[in-house]
Amino acid sequence: MDKINQAIHSIRPLDERAMSGARARQDNLTKPQGSLGQMESLSVQVAGIKGEANPRIIHKVIFTLAGDHGVTRSGVSAYPSEVTPQMVYNFLRGGAAINVLARHIGAKVIVADLGVASTLERHTELKDKKVGMGTRNMVEGPAMTREQAIRSIEAGMELVEEELKNGIHILGTGDMGIGNTTPSSAIAAAITGADVAKVTGRGTGLDDEGWRRKVQTIEKALDINRPNPKDAIDVLSKVGGFEIGGIVGLILAGARYRIPVVIDGFISGAAALVATSLAPQIKPYLIASHQSAEPGHKTILEHLGLKPLLNLDLRLGEGTGGALGIFLVEASLKILNEMATFAEAGVSEKT
Amino acid sequence: MDKINQAIHSIRPLDERAMSGARARQDNLTKPQGSLGQMESLSVQVAGIKGEANPRIIHKVIFTLAGDHGVTRSGVSAYPSEVTPQMVYNFLRGGAAINVLARHIGAKVIVADLGVASTLERHTELKDKKVGMGTRNMVEGPAMTREQAIRSIEAGMELVEEELKNGIHILGTGDMGIGNTTPSSAIAAAITGADVAKVTGRGTGLDDEGWRRKVQTIEKALDINRPNPKDAIDVLSKVGGFEIGGIVGLILAGARYRIPVVIDGFISGAAALVATSLAPQIKPYLIASHQSAEPGHKTILEHLGLKPLLNLDLRLGEGTGGALGIFLVEASLKILNEMATFAEAGVSEKT
Repeated sequence: MDKINQAIHSIRPLDERAMSGARARQDNLTKPQGSLGQMESLSVQVAGIKGEANPRIIHKVIFTLAGDHGVTRSGVSAYPSEVTPQMVYNFLRGGAAINVLARHIGAKVIVADLGVASTLERHTELKDKKVGMGTRNMVEGPAMTREQAIRSIEAGMELVEEELKNGIHILGTGDMGIGNTTPSSAIAAAITGADVAKVTGRGTGLDDEGWRRKVQTIEKALDINRPNPKDAIDVLSKVGGFEIGGIVGLILAGARYRIPVVIDGFISGAAALVATSLAPQIKPYLIASHQSAEPGHKTILEHLGLKPLLNLDLRLGEGTGGALGIFLVEASLKILNEMATFAEAGVSEKT
Repeated sequence: MDKINQAIHSIRPLDERAMSGARARQDNLTKPQGSLGQMESLSVQVAGIKGEANPRIIHKVIFTLAGDHGVTRSGVSAYPSEVTPQMVYNFLRGGAAINVLARHIGAKVIVADLGVASTLERHTELKDKKVGMGTRNMVEGPAMTREQAIRSIEAGMELVEEELKNGIHILGTGDMGIGNTTPSSAIAAAITGADVAKVTGRGTGLDDEGWRRKVQTIEKALDINRPNPKDAIDVLSKVGGFEIGGIVGLILAGARYRIPVVIDGFISGAAALVATSLAPQIKPYLIASHQSAEPGHKTILEHLGLKPLLNLDLRLGEGTGGALGIFLVEASLKILNEMATFAEAGVSEKT
């Protein structure tokens, strides 16, 4: 927990001077003030995060963290757990959606095993940060121990720290874990206080009966475990997941090292709830890439006070929405850095 | 008008076979069916437009069309008309937002003078398609003659045809014209039947008084000219603009040559209203890049039955939203073409 506490205490507010500089430049570029809407505010936010009035992004990194969930034994997913390791191999071969989108935006994908329920074949591109062989079934007790919850967060932080030497100018969060919308809904209900049914969706494709079973499972897990909403580590350990804890660590390290954190969809949103519950000063470092098709995501983003950049009914995870979001952040910075000012272009200003 | 009629009669429905092929492939890719939402349907639409089950995009072209508006003499814009030619030079020097975003997505920008109210310096990169030295003030009579309206549409079609030899796999529409939200609002009111106040916004930055003057100006123009909503050319000639007519031509030619047409914001939306009023069979060829901050744009997109890809409060025009939209279309096709199938990746399917 020392590592986590140290990081939390190292998080600084955004740099107001860099933000003023970026805002002043945006207002002098050859366009009506404010006419590029969120693209303008995004560039100002990134300036504040990086502490530079004209930040540039070269090294883009998406972290896709995998873990399994004991709660799948309660029939909460349309896919079998064996798909988690199969998809990890798919990531490593470059055949998944996140690989395609990362190539499209020129980003690196770092794949890590935070808690897949089987022993994965070694691979030079696979980071082994396994905390356990999948979580326990949260309807029968805590998904993991408090120590495991802490370890999963630290593992996520390590992933960022190990990559710092190569440069990370922006990071995207991603997840893979059959069944992981269930712990995410449980976390959302526990931390925001929303009804379970309101924050529970169909995941990868449940029918009506499956959805009702999922809601009951989450209600039962919350009832048995009684996570303390004021103690984010308690929530993570009782109804969370290893890859979710890992994403909490990514977010924490991002804020710690002044890296803009582009959060993906529902699972990353649940991790962001845990992270900002641990340290509210993380919020200004977050960029919400998209509004997921999972209904609970709206509740999460409202709780975080974030306006998503995209609303494309995505519900895949892996960091796919984050990849598209990173492209938009990059666009916003190119606008800031590359456009001509009124003076440079000899264009008349507003009358 | 022969050229326009010929194009209209050459527009074919989307290719159902190509769409089925694309849909079948999307359903076999290593992700839950439908989990990439609009990114999936977008790829299927483009397959139907191009008549290929796995279309690829290399040549991306954004057309930015400029024109001036006599109605600016009624005080409807926060910027003086001289900004239109100044911005044309800015486009040609690569300093405007559209240049930055086009470079970001690897697209070509074609700049054309459809009716700037001054004689522009010659430039190898500037297409001269001038129909007139700006429109007349529509509060005093028709903005242009019926012949000029037809000529502006044909000029837009020519721009596409002249570029076909270099290849156009996708096209984005864009505009530059001080005062052009005024004719766009007038077109929206005339064709959709909406109240003028509902479809009129603050353009580049009017205050309350300016906004009221703009609404009254549009109401007066509609009252004096009585455009016939069943005759799109009549609407364009009486309350339109040369660059808006040019965009109608871009859209028409796009559908004629089976090129996906990514429409930008409010001005391009008004042009799309005219184009689809001329030929409703154009609609399936349209992709709405974004929901503009201009309030009337919502009315336009609803009338067209289009769901925008982005909602970033953009209100700049030039084709900037279109550029971001083209990036998303490209992403959707890469997903379609580059992802592994369940069989290829050895991933289990839904139980």
